[in-house]
Amino acid sequence: MRRLKATISYDGTHFSGYQVQPGERTVQLEIENVLSKMHKGDSVRITASGRTDSKVHASGQVIHFDTNLSIPVDRYQKALNVQLPSDIRILNVEEVPSDFHARFSVKGKRYRYIWSCEQVQSPFRRHYTVDTKGVKPNIEKMKDAAQYIIGTHDFTCFCAANTSVVDKVRTVHSLDLKWHEDELHMTIEGNGFLYNMVRIIAGTLWEVGIEKRDPNQLKEIIASMDRGNAGKTAPPHGLFLEKVFY
Amino acid sequence: MRRLKATISYDGTHFSGYQVQPGERTVQLEIENVLSKMHKGDSVRITASGRTDSKVHASGQVIHFDTNLSIPVDRYQKALNVQLPSDIRILNVEEVPSDFHARFSVKGKRYRYIWSCEQVQSPFRRHYTVDTKGVKPNIEKMKDAAQYIIGTHDFTCFCAANTSVVDKVRTVHSLDLKWHEDELHMTIEGNGFLYNMVRIIAGTLWEVGIEKRDPNQLKEIIASMDRGNAGKTAPPHGLFLEKVFY
Repeated sequence: MRRLKATISYDGTHFSGYQVQPGERTVQLEIENVLSKMHKGDSVRITASGRTDSKVHASGQVIHFDTNLSIPVDRYQKALNVQLPSDIRILNVEEVPSDFHARFSVKGKRYRYIWSCEQVQSPFRRHYTVDTKGVKPNIEKMKDAAQYIIGTHDFTCFCAANTSVVDKVRTVHSLDLKWHEDELHMTIEGNGFLYNMVRIIAGTLWEVGIEKRDPNQLKEIIASMDRGNAGKTAPPHGLFLEKVFY
Repeated sequence: MRRLKATISYDGTHFSGYQVQPGERTVQLEIENVLSKMHKGDSVRITASGRTDSKVHASGQVIHFDTNLSIPVDRYQKALNVQLPSDIRILNVEEVPSDFHARFSVKGKRYRYIWSCEQVQSPFRRHYTVDTKGVKPNIEKMKDAAQYIIGTHDFTCFCAANTSVVDKVRTVHSLDLKWHEDELHMTIEGNGFLYNMVRIIAGTLWEVGIEKRDPNQLKEIIASMDRGNAGKTAPPHGLFLEKVFY
């Protein structure tokens, strides 16, 4: 038995998220089905760094699984890519020590969130960016607000209310905002993220960007530890899990 | 009655091409359906600069139609975009003289063809680029071959055999090849293009790029006026109609 780590990318558009759910097309199900075929029908369970929701994308999700097949790792990658649907791609496969765990060994993650601020959203970007209908936010105000988020805080205010996690203290290492032509990209890196945290941060910073909120409100929002004080949860299809750090 | 010219963009992935065909989802049908609703059920016929095939995209297709509605052109654009599916977008609407004709007034067109040459194609680019499975062609040889195509020639060799057009002389003004990171972009501009011409040129240049053909073979291929001597027709989903000149 050896443990393999795979870095994968998927277009979340046509998935009901990462995790297996009865009757739904999910990323985990598609990969486990192909692995099971490769293992002559034996079921193979994969473990990811964390779930992603329906329509959320990944350019660098990480999974691990155990296998008794002795084929080389690059052959593994090719065999998986040939059999997987084209909206999931295996970018890399490597052998790791048996104590490596895709979820418990995580040191940090980076996400990207993209708004398309063109007057008319390109149809080629409709599944990968959130259409602002031409609204261009004030990026300087968003950057000011972001300064309150960077650091170690109890992020209860940015966590979906229906979560069972107890410790909501996380560290955000960086939060950058940058124009790429008419698209606004937010990248956020931290040691861990609560359920919906990136999308709630994106939604709250957006409200600052369109001057519905002042940047310095972020200080009070975080201190309040009340989800109700933060902004709306931004739509899923603008979000990419970009990198997992170990 | 006034004549309106609209510049439109569409993601060809889920269309059976531009032109209305019984029982098929086409770009023309979707736009005519919305226009008909706006005109209280009266049928409105649109005319495009030319057809595009199934899975071929457009970032700058042009259509015209006649209307008796007196609403301003920017309101027209918004009303259309609200009602159209998100894989078709109206980029611009303007009033034009009644003798403007989207097809017969065309002075030239520009197309783009894109190959994705990464080891593993990004799932986000799978509908918009042709996957070369990591093969990187020799762009210098492709550029050498392109020199034989630029100019005024009888392009019978690059025309799908089942065409009814008699005069196959066209002028290619420019044919550029350029790397954009791991994507190879071919842009071609000319006064007109025969059926499948851009895709057959792309397929032939590709065969030069992977050194299956010599660049100077292009001279003989064109002179032969025989479709059988050119390369394979490249797949539709790498092709974009980028601009129509009037």
